[in-house]
Amino acid sequence: MYRSHNCGELRASHINTEVTLSGWVQKSRDKGFVLWVDLRDRYGITQLVFDEERTPKALMEQAQNLGREFVIQIKGTVIERTSKNANIATGDIEILVSELTVLNSALLPPFTIEDDTDGGEELRMKYRYLDIRRNPVKNSLIFRAKVAQEVRNYLSNEGFIEVETPYLIKSTPEGARDFVVPSRMNEGQFYALPQSPQTFKQLLMVGGMDKYFQIVKCFRDEDLRADRQPEFTQIDCEMAFVEQEDILNAFEGLTRHLLKEVNGVEIEKFPRMTYDEAMQKYGNDKPDIRFGMEFGELNEVTQHKDFGVFNTAELVVGIAVPGGNAYTRKEIDQLINWVKRPQIGALGMIYARYNDDGTFKSSVDKFYDQDDLAKWAEITGAKPGDLICVLSGPTHKVRTQLSALRMELATRLGLRNPKEFAPLWVVDFPLLEWDEETNRYHAMHHPFTSPKPGQLELLDTDPGAVKANAYDLVLNGNEIGGGSIRIHDKKTQSLMFDYLGFTPEEAKAQFGFLMDAFQYGAPPHGGLAFGLDRLVAILGGQETIRDFIAFPKNNNGRDVMIDAPAPIDDKQLEELSLKLNLKS
Amino acid sequence: MYRSHNCGELRASHINTEVTLSGWVQKSRDKGFVLWVDLRDRYGITQLVFDEERTPKALMEQAQNLGREFVIQIKGTVIERTSKNANIATGDIEILVSELTVLNSALLPPFTIEDDTDGGEELRMKYRYLDIRRNPVKNSLIFRAKVAQEVRNYLSNEGFIEVETPYLIKSTPEGARDFVVPSRMNEGQFYALPQSPQTFKQLLMVGGMDKYFQIVKCFRDEDLRADRQPEFTQIDCEMAFVEQEDILNAFEGLTRHLLKEVNGVEIEKFPRMTYDEAMQKYGNDKPDIRFGMEFGELNEVTQHKDFGVFNTAELVVGIAVPGGNAYTRKEIDQLINWVKRPQIGALGMIYARYNDDGTFKSSVDKFYDQDDLAKWAEITGAKPGDLICVLSGPTHKVRTQLSALRMELATRLGLRNPKEFAPLWVVDFPLLEWDEETNRYHAMHHPFTSPKPGQLELLDTDPGAVKANAYDLVLNGNEIGGGSIRIHDKKTQSLMFDYLGFTPEEAKAQFGFLMDAFQYGAPPHGGLAFGLDRLVAILGGQETIRDFIAFPKNNNGRDVMIDAPAPIDDKQLEELSLKLNLKS
Repeated sequence: MYRSHNCGELRASHINTEVTLSGWVQKSRDKGFVLWVDLRDRYGITQLVFDEERTPKALMEQAQNLGREFVIQIKGTVIERTSKNANIATGDIEILVSELTVLNSALLPPFTIEDDTDGGEELRMKYRYLDIRRNPVKNSLIFRAKVAQEVRNYLSNEGFIEVETPYLIKSTPEGARDFVVPSRMNEGQFYALPQSPQTFKQLLMVGGMDKYFQIVKCFRDEDLRADRQPEFTQIDCEMAFVEQEDILNAFEGLTRHLLKEVNGVEIEKFPRMTYDEAMQKYGNDKPDIRFGMEFGELNEVTQHKDFGVFNTAELVVGIAVPGGNAYTRKEIDQLINWVKRPQIGALGMIYARYNDDGTFKSSVDKFYDQDDLAKWAEITGAKPGDLICVLSGPTHKVRTQLSALRMELATRLGLRNPKEFAPLWVVDFPLLEWDEETNRYHAMHHPFTSPKPGQLELLDTDPGAVKANAYDLVLNGNEIGGGSIRIHDKKTQSLMFDYLGFTPEEAKAQFGFLMDAFQYGAPPHGGLAFGLDRLVAILGGQETIRDFIAFPKNNNGRDVMIDAPAPIDDKQLEELSLKLNLKS
Repeated sequence: MYRSHNCGELRASHINTEVTLSGWVQKSRDKGFVLWVDLRDRYGITQLVFDEERTPKALMEQAQNLGREFVIQIKGTVIERTSKNANIATGDIEILVSELTVLNSALLPPFTIEDDTDGGEELRMKYRYLDIRRNPVKNSLIFRAKVAQEVRNYLSNEGFIEVETPYLIKSTPEGARDFVVPSRMNEGQFYALPQSPQTFKQLLMVGGMDKYFQIVKCFRDEDLRADRQPEFTQIDCEMAFVEQEDILNAFEGLTRHLLKEVNGVEIEKFPRMTYDEAMQKYGNDKPDIRFGMEFGELNEVTQHKDFGVFNTAELVVGIAVPGGNAYTRKEIDQLINWVKRPQIGALGMIYARYNDDGTFKSSVDKFYDQDDLAKWAEITGAKPGDLICVLSGPTHKVRTQLSALRMELATRLGLRNPKEFAPLWVVDFPLLEWDEETNRYHAMHHPFTSPKPGQLELLDTDPGAVKANAYDLVLNGNEIGGGSIRIHDKKTQSLMFDYLGFTPEEAKAQFGFLMDAFQYGAPPHGGLAFGLDRLVAILGGQETIRDFIAFPKNNNGRDVMIDAPAPIDDKQLEELSLKLNLKS
């Protein structure tokens, strides 16, 4: 038996107990006549003590030779600690050690195993097993497990059945790029790893499973941006015989449960907003509503003056920055430069200071008088002491730019408190979105999303205006979930594939099984998927997902710890009937 | 709102309630003046009634036109049923329908959606979404979800943390064949899909995670035998600072919990048996101990006579078949032919009838007298009325043959009751096993398994005799789990790789990260993995796993429903820097 207790459980009530503990040497403090060792395991830290008076010489020497991260087992007696440590749960006691066994020695770790480490990101990923010993990473993984377990408990109690769908499926050219898996037994053919279990969960609805969920890995072979992973985890859900309202209620219930169980936060009813409203008020389909700074559209009150920039703009829109009048001229110039950076792309920014005395001072005083600016203030909700920032240009572009500015300023103003949670349903998403690259409409959500009743006819005349029964759950400015009511009849699904540019042959080859299924009695159905990695990070009050993933990959999709991907044997290639065809 | 209640919930207490139900038309019975429709959903069946007196003519006609598997919504009143149906939970009531909406029509299903269907296996797999509507499949999937949830609840309560390990890892030539995934971003390189998260769970132990579990998909590109799937699910577990005893107790607890919660069976303490004992008593390392028929070794009492076959045999071994003396001569001849089939491969079988009067009649009366045969009976535990079956030959071969015969006879005798559960730990597995094909020793469990203390030295002199801290959990003659105490120091691990034929370079390239990790303070650790598919099937009292998998693949590794694997675009191949290299 390696231990009688763990390193987080001994208290004053255990004094005089003989115990056996095992763990890692966190650190030693050697005063010559007395030596303390902090022994660490998953559960906490317990202080060991060795001293000249009570510890045999050989044991004292053995203790003095312990290095950081050595794995040891000790036997000893729990004694009262002379100077208590209120910072740790075991701070009332220490162990007077009578026997010490080194279970494994350790090289000096390449970075310090402390809450604040000196290790850079790549180094920590290479030695991830050491990084996981650090509280911030360890606790994030434990937190993730708790969230997942709460999801399962809640959904199971609500009658959802977790069903495992296959990982070796079929590649579809639509959407993001698939990872493929060559089949040895079916020469020249490939499986694909699922980007989501979308079609399978729909088939489960056709199969009468009714309330399905799964916490499942999904895969996308995309060029990785920071904080994207080629494999990620989804909470995937689907229900039959439901309307949008049923789904929103079901998963609002789940999210409310998580906020309560995991964060101790109770939120009554989540607000809802249409996509159009979100774009108009926040320039963003995932607005952070922890703070205001809503957009005010100023076309009516800025045009018909002599300011050509505004007169010719499709949209003139501003926000009030709380207390922003305190900014110096230099700080405002820096803001202007910030919005003009290529990543944001604004051509400039007009501003108006709202002085405490009720007067205004703007960068366009030549064109707008105090009454004009008072209207700006009214529309943007500015108060004395605020700064009004105004951008102008093509509607979608300028909204995106002002949204970026709004988020940046909110961050600077400390309005994005990670301990505050503001969920929001965004509903009535467009069915289609225009893709500049391919010069055509694509399914905004996916090709299985149902248009709103009666809107199918708009497809030919005004495709961009067709709204779908599609919705996102937004939390603190992040999309944490999204879904839709699906098409459940073959005719509409064929029409949709046709509209999205599939030939009938392609549609049949790729999704024939789904359209077949729709002919055998498909119920109305819909669902939603949460991104677990992001959800967990936000609930955990963090911006980045990496610490919530046990073994993440870097931005090149590499696992730098195991050094994957890697070349494979010629024999393996041969068995798979493949040859390399290197470009370089 | 599609429904106020589901099809399994209405009772006599609901009589006179107005309800809305949705579901599938299971079947109709049309008597002309009255028409009953069985409406089905996941939760049950509710009878709908339409009759001349109370149903408007148009609605009656609408109902008459319903086909099997149509998806409908009805409104109506719960009324008392004149002839109650005790077979279904809603059998006291029926719904007098006032409104009927066809939500979706249905083609005639290719097989009947009944508990006993007329569909063959391939047809049912092609239309799996219809097969899932059948109770046996639907209930199996729900049962599986319950088992998985119980596993998670139990392990979480015991302090285990579920950690997700990566699916895109590195190919290792050792063991079964990997499925590989070409990397687009790392030209000419491949990920592999995990055969198990073995090294990652060990790294989690090095990382201090201590008690890990995961229900996780694993992948093996093997030539498929019946009832094997290229992707399968494991309950994967690992613990640090443990000895074998701790692990057996932990997962005996889990299994006991499942048997109790899922099957209502309470089992106190699981018996344990060494591998050697299992082989000797049952000729099998996963013996079914629901029944006796233990092997009796007869060398001592059969040799030194004139029967050459036995005299030259390495092992002479028999079993007593309860009541087998009732077999006719023809039936015994059939048994002899059965063991001589190529799949079993025995050269013949000697038998002795144990008559009710205490006398014996054997096929070798020429060589053995009544006293000799009485000894056979004593050793095999035969009683009057039994049949003693004896095989002889090389030890391992003859044990395997007699084990097959024992299982076959037990099945015929109805001794393998699927509602009875007999778990068994088999411990002290050999570290290595001889592989005829490659003419060398392989790791029996895997190369990370630790030899028993002090046995490492035997490796050079008697490798086959080295025992490992490796164990299997056997349930009703099936291995449902297996594991070991792992090596946790670099030196032993290097030695093991060396012994298994890895060059130091290969060992470093493949498992350098693990051996590195062992240098930074690796704790003693060990674990176990359960095969979830098989575990669920056995707990569910079934022999085959397919009905417990939502979307299984056929014996060629194909998903015949979605028709995968399939060829991919040239563009995809090009992006992956691959060319097909077809043999045919």
